[in-house]
Amino acid sequence: MSTISCHIGILGAGQLGRMLAMAGYPLGHKFGFYGLSHDEPASMLGHMHTPTQENTDDTSNLDDLVSFADVITFESENTSVELVKQISQITPVYPSATSLYYAQDRGREKALFNQLAIPCAPYALVNNLTDLEAAVNTIGLPAVLKTTTEGYDGKGQFVIKQPEQLYQAWLSIGERPAILEGFVNFKRELSIIAVRNANNEHVYYSLVENQHRDGILRLTLAPAQQIDPAIQQQAERYMQALLDKMGHVGVLTLELFETEAGLVANEMAPRVHNSGHWTMEGAQTSQFENHIRAISGLPLGSTAARQPFAAMVNIIGEHGDIQAALKLPNVHVHLYDKAERAGRKLGHINVLANSQAELNQTLEQLQAWLS
Amino acid sequence: MSTISCHIGILGAGQLGRMLAMAGYPLGHKFGFYGLSHDEPASMLGHMHTPTQENTDDTSNLDDLVSFADVITFESENTSVELVKQISQITPVYPSATSLYYAQDRGREKALFNQLAIPCAPYALVNNLTDLEAAVNTIGLPAVLKTTTEGYDGKGQFVIKQPEQLYQAWLSIGERPAILEGFVNFKRELSIIAVRNANNEHVYYSLVENQHRDGILRLTLAPAQQIDPAIQQQAERYMQALLDKMGHVGVLTLELFETEAGLVANEMAPRVHNSGHWTMEGAQTSQFENHIRAISGLPLGSTAARQPFAAMVNIIGEHGDIQAALKLPNVHVHLYDKAERAGRKLGHINVLANSQAELNQTLEQLQAWLS
Repeated sequence: MSTISCHIGILGAGQLGRMLAMAGYPLGHKFGFYGLSHDEPASMLGHMHTPTQENTDDTSNLDDLVSFADVITFESENTSVELVKQISQITPVYPSATSLYYAQDRGREKALFNQLAIPCAPYALVNNLTDLEAAVNTIGLPAVLKTTTEGYDGKGQFVIKQPEQLYQAWLSIGERPAILEGFVNFKRELSIIAVRNANNEHVYYSLVENQHRDGILRLTLAPAQQIDPAIQQQAERYMQALLDKMGHVGVLTLELFETEAGLVANEMAPRVHNSGHWTMEGAQTSQFENHIRAISGLPLGSTAARQPFAAMVNIIGEHGDIQAALKLPNVHVHLYDKAERAGRKLGHINVLANSQAELNQTLEQLQAWLS
Repeated sequence: MSTISCHIGILGAGQLGRMLAMAGYPLGHKFGFYGLSHDEPASMLGHMHTPTQENTDDTSNLDDLVSFADVITFESENTSVELVKQISQITPVYPSATSLYYAQDRGREKALFNQLAIPCAPYALVNNLTDLEAAVNTIGLPAVLKTTTEGYDGKGQFVIKQPEQLYQAWLSIGERPAILEGFVNFKRELSIIAVRNANNEHVYYSLVENQHRDGILRLTLAPAQQIDPAIQQQAERYMQALLDKMGHVGVLTLELFETEAGLVANEMAPRVHNSGHWTMEGAQTSQFENHIRAISGLPLGSTAARQPFAAMVNIIGEHGDIQAALKLPNVHVHLYDKAERAGRKLGHINVLANSQAELNQTLEQLQAWLS
């Protein structure tokens, strides 16, 4: 075996774990997963460990993964900070509990943005309906009520437009600890992906544009068009501040709003991200490979684009006519081996092009997945 | 699960099976292998089946793979034709026993080349020393004595330069059924990879140049430089004749000599081939993905190059300083998770470039693996 190869454990066995493993095997690494069941997307791609009773959050069999692994990473920012601290006593976990602590709670995340002078929406912590009324008085409407933890793909959010919606909003998010955020009037939604390894190397991918529907990412355009180089540099400075402050090792994603006044941070994820899936064929080194390189102590790879234009189209709910997509040149299909279900991410299609016209033409041919 | 997804069984679990599986998971397929032991390169990448007594050629546990699989393929042309015929009674095997029959025996292969008017070296079948003497009288010296079956990486071959070497040559190849081939005075060694699916689609990659040392492939240059388009077309015509004659489904590789008189066929392999590893990042669709597409009834993907120049450098015997390679942009490392051993293929490094100068510069930086 090569001297660079190691055993990597992943908490979670969904599509992110699946794509991390596929990016890591070519480096000679071996993979193990702790997932909910043997049906999960990553389950064929390494040693699969599950709770004794599948589909529960029991961690009694986690020891098997920990003893297998030289290093452990996780798929979700909702991973328990306490659990990661416990594992870290035995086996290194990257990103560390510190990154997880900040990234899994919107209140801590916003406080960190403020501390690092990264612009973000005004916000207030909300623990009950009285807090919410006070917060609305300070921040004004429209505003967005979000649970502090565990929201994703638009879940756990309510856009409050009128004062009489407060109770409805509070019920809607499950009467849980939340923050109220001022509504940001944005032109586009952007994101940036950065990577840091323990040797303090930093690399950054280009800002990309993300288009959502019903709170779910549908389309990423890479790079985002008409971005002033100064804006890219500013985004990279924000990322460097976050990476260094948290001592982050691995991929970090920051979602941003592009506004008249400049970039406004929305939220960060301490992991590979759907808006980075275009990098699989679109960049010299994918976000998945760079995450694996970072956590396994290897030099980071080039983030340069391989072609001038790329896009990522999510396959949501139903697979559709995959054979039609496979017939297109410059298109790469990535399926996650998941059963169809409304709103579920089943795969994605990467598109590469040498011109905007070529990109638009191919996206036109993929309209079935975008409409 | 998607309607295109299926279960694929692979006879063998080496690096070819490993890379086939990694190319097939993104299509939603699942993989199983029948290999010698749980230490093989593909063993982590699907259901692994082995003989009851590992590292034997016992096939008693093969039923498990056959019942798992919707379709079966193989890694090696040395797979038993009889075994493939038996399996085919239950589960389709692609390429079929017909392709295997021709490709695993140099005598049958040469006869097929002659039948299809594909130029190849003069040859004679040799079953004993008397045959060898007669063959040398007909064909002349120098000539190459090769076992009809199971030779690879230069094993089972002897170049006869002088008449007094006949006995030494016969002993050297193990006194087994062989052919004597006239020595071909070639300028370069080339190869071409083609793919056919059951819907009679054919696609072809560009001719590449292969540089060997001690009978082992060291370097592939893709595409081969200074190839007249008429030569590429001729190679494609030869491939189409072979694919159609054998009803081949999957990847077929043909090694060729470039001579003053044109292309001369050397040998074919009914499988993905080391000289096609550059396609992983170098082509729109890799040879591995196209093989999987072909055997699983999907449309074939574009074989166009993604950048004008590509190369593949084999990692032989020792891994060397992999971190140094990882630091180079435009370079992709693929390790097979194998222990170091003299002459063993441990991985390969793909190089991509936009100019000959850029390619040469990167190959210079990879000299440790080429010298």
